[in-house]
Amino acid sequence: MAFDTLEMPYGTFEYVVGGAATFSSIAASLLTHGVRIVGIVGEDFPQDYLDFLRKREIDTLGVEQVPGKSFFWRGRYSADLASRETLDTQLNVFANFQPKIPESHRSTPYVLLGNIHPQLQLDVLDQVEKPKLVAADTMNFWISGESATLNKLLGRTDLLIINDEEARQLSGIDNIVRAAADIRKRGPSRLIIKRGEFGSLLFDEAGTFFCPGYPLEEVRDPTGAGDTFAGGLLGYVARHGDTSALTLRRAMFFGSALASFCVEDVGTTRIGKVTRSELDARIQAFARLVDYGGSLALPAEESR
Amino acid sequence: MAFDTLEMPYGTFEYVVGGAATFSSIAASLLTHGVRIVGIVGEDFPQDYLDFLRKREIDTLGVEQVPGKSFFWRGRYSADLASRETLDTQLNVFANFQPKIPESHRSTPYVLLGNIHPQLQLDVLDQVEKPKLVAADTMNFWISGESATLNKLLGRTDLLIINDEEARQLSGIDNIVRAAADIRKRGPSRLIIKRGEFGSLLFDEAGTFFCPGYPLEEVRDPTGAGDTFAGGLLGYVARHGDTSALTLRRAMFFGSALASFCVEDVGTTRIGKVTRSELDARIQAFARLVDYGGSLALPAEESR
Repeated sequence: MAFDTLEMPYGTFEYVVGGAATFSSIAASLLTHGVRIVGIVGEDFPQDYLDFLRKREIDTLGVEQVPGKSFFWRGRYSADLASRETLDTQLNVFANFQPKIPESHRSTPYVLLGNIHPQLQLDVLDQVEKPKLVAADTMNFWISGESATLNKLLGRTDLLIINDEEARQLSGIDNIVRAAADIRKRGPSRLIIKRGEFGSLLFDEAGTFFCPGYPLEEVRDPTGAGDTFAGGLLGYVARHGDTSALTLRRAMFFGSALASFCVEDVGTTRIGKVTRSELDARIQAFARLVDYGGSLALPAEESR
Repeated sequence: MAFDTLEMPYGTFEYVVGGAATFSSIAASLLTHGVRIVGIVGEDFPQDYLDFLRKREIDTLGVEQVPGKSFFWRGRYSADLASRETLDTQLNVFANFQPKIPESHRSTPYVLLGNIHPQLQLDVLDQVEKPKLVAADTMNFWISGESATLNKLLGRTDLLIINDEEARQLSGIDNIVRAAADIRKRGPSRLIIKRGEFGSLLFDEAGTFFCPGYPLEEVRDPTGAGDTFAGGLLGYVARHGDTSALTLRRAMFFGSALASFCVEDVGTTRIGKVTRSELDARIQAFARLVDYGGSLALPAEESR
């Protein structure tokens, strides 16, 4: 849970509430009840925002508020929003974060480990009892700097959700298909590789599955889209109550649909306002986007 | 029809047979009979290669062979094969090419206009009688240098097949969805925007459709993949004998499947060897790649 200052091509937005837990939990709360977040914020974090989360029935018992400032990130996006540059990172209260899972939350069945130090991700896992699905994210910084700890985490992860550059870095393999095979050998039986607007690939026991990004007329801010995708995915799985390969494939459409809302405005502005009927409409649009009538059989050749 | 010298990261391949007509016709011939090509080659073009096309039942009556050298292109690919640089282009016999459609071919129902000067594309259209579908490709060079002629062509094109950079350049709009809407207003009621390995988008009267690229373990040479896609697409439409929106959506999978073979080896090496059973297997793999069981309905929420 964080503040982001976003330098967009069309203007700068100061101290926007962001952070993986924020985006993910809002997305999940659109699909299931009982979403719980764990995180740390400083005294500067707006009470209003915590209230907003609680109104969405997101349990914030695991959110510590401590003296000091909240995590802060400042970034500048390129003109086409396809890349961004970090201008400033201030860990602040995050520097000494030790995630504590409330006693009542230890039996949480579906666990999404946001991108933090892999040792902290492991510490969370040590505090939960036999979850049905452990999903995790990570980033280049931990892949290069904490590979031994990250490997331990991979051994305890069911579903790794990373982007294509991270997959290449983690495996040392340029080709995405071979990179995926390599990563799955290290622990996660399931792997989702995100490719931004180009969609995402799932590699699991059922083979390879592709879910597109939703083609949008306007993208305002890609920040948090990946976290929204992961939160929506887990939210759908939790709602469904099973972790089958087919459920996971369908969950990707919900994750992708929610991510497509997320990018329509700055920070959590848009995702925080999505209604169930808007989500239903976009899911239907998604179904049309990939609808080829179900059959790819070749017709008999006409007479020659 | 051309010679390409390909400087790949793993070696240089001299005077490989290429050209849009070559790739497209081979792809189409895997799906339908009666494929006809129109083009020009020099004395240096191998008779063996023309024989190879004819053995595939590709009608080469429209291929002129004239004194001089065939079109030649030399290019160098980047390490990841995602971009390429033109090192040399020699028009040779192509400089004075005037496409002539043989009398017997004027009633060809499905016409694919490969990327050449838009005036030559128009000249071809003047020689065919009421085709059921006119598909066309173009490139940055004609978009910037021959916009008036290109606009005439667009007015006579049913299906434009271009890549995302060309769509942006043609429309002057960065966003692909809005670029597509702009381009369709200029004539083509149907537009396919190709995005290489990331798949392709179809914009038409039925809405927007997305077909992924097939995830491959190894890509050797992207040259001709777009032409193979277009040829496979038209070949499927011709085989089906209708130009409905649903047929076009299905045709994209066949185009994409054939393109996925094309890139597996240099030039037409791989696409020239694909068997029907290999194609069937890849189409089935494609169907699995996008199979989410057909339903995206949300299950009822469990009791709270």
